[in-house]
Amino acid sequence: MTSPTAAPVPLVERKRRLVQQRIVEAADELFSERGFDQVSVTDIAARADVGRTTFFRYFGDKQEVVFAKEQQLLATITAAAQQDSPGAAGTAGEALEQLRPIVLDVCEQATTDPEAYERHCRLVDHYLELRGRDALKMQHIAVILSELLVRRGTEATLAVFAAQVALACYQTARLRSGSGRSLTDETRAAFDEALALGQRPAATGRG
Amino acid sequence: MTSPTAAPVPLVERKRRLVQQRIVEAADELFSERGFDQVSVTDIAARADVGRTTFFRYFGDKQEVVFAKEQQLLATITAAAQQDSPGAAGTAGEALEQLRPIVLDVCEQATTDPEAYERHCRLVDHYLELRGRDALKMQHIAVILSELLVRRGTEATLAVFAAQVALACYQTARLRSGSGRSLTDETRAAFDEALALGQRPAATGRG
Repeated sequence: MTSPTAAPVPLVERKRRLVQQRIVEAADELFSERGFDQVSVTDIAARADVGRTTFFRYFGDKQEVVFAKEQQLLATITAAAQQDSPGAAGTAGEALEQLRPIVLDVCEQATTDPEAYERHCRLVDHYLELRGRDALKMQHIAVILSELLVRRGTEATLAVFAAQVALACYQTARLRSGSGRSLTDETRAAFDEALALGQRPAATGRG
Repeated sequence: MTSPTAAPVPLVERKRRLVQQRIVEAADELFSERGFDQVSVTDIAARADVGRTTFFRYFGDKQEVVFAKEQQLLATITAAAQQDSPGAAGTAGEALEQLRPIVLDVCEQATTDPEAYERHCRLVDHYLELRGRDALKMQHIAVILSELLVRRGTEATLAVFAAQVALACYQTARLRSGSGRSLTDETRAAFDEALALGQRPAATGRG
């Protein structure tokens, strides 16, 4: 839990983050130099100047390094869950409205460095195994969002649906937006469209 | 959807399907006997009484056998695309309404044998790599649905959104439904909810 006035990060945690960051940067370099499939964990560990054992203390496998940022995004969701609680959502629309600011926060965080975000997307798109892992991560985010709603008192069946629609908005934005810079705006637009789905367009003559 | 008066299937195609079916059944048996990760392509080929070369003529890898049925589901979508064309959808709601019968057809097909469907789900749930492949297949289905709408004249940005929401409905149903028998009904209910998202509940006093 991060409190509003963040406590100083202990030295051991600062060191941990630095090592993790070094591994991620080493992997990024190697992936762009040689391609993802031509790089081994041993290569990454060597470039980052750590042992293989250290590598595996931080990442389960080579793929996980690609999704290192994802852990931070999950932390964003967890923090949001703890800070403001508007209580239970009574309808799917309310549940979706509760998820909107959280997903937009995630988008902002994911694209703080738009070039890095786009590089990440290109890498994932290029490798079937990374696309699979990415799709799975997205489903994991939906589970976390759903659990957040349930903890606020929302009925589970409603929460599951709202989380899946929130994910659909995010995926739509990823497919529509040409760049990392527009991801948050596109996601906001997709939420607007979802929340207006049942409304008949006012000025359309039907029939 | 098969055409009303189905043309006779040529002998060579009938033989092809039989071999494919034998491979799928051999794999199913082996997976339940030993677990997915303890079975090799060589094992499957031997049990199906075909060579490894034949195996790879039908499936790209061991994972693909698990998703053999998926090819049929994609064929269902393609057939739907060709048979009835209500034309371009002007709103996201209309696009979603166009996708609904197609996705429900897919659900029906996927669960014609509910026990086999549930066995498939349990297998996929159990292995991270299969969950990843499954999530990817779902995204692939969304792409196909989106392309179908675009071929009917629907704007691409609208089509992408509707396809993602349709997928969200299907995923919601998978998460909600305890059995293969209820998948289609749960998916129908989720579409209803999506298409009513923007409607305020009539009897709620707000503020």
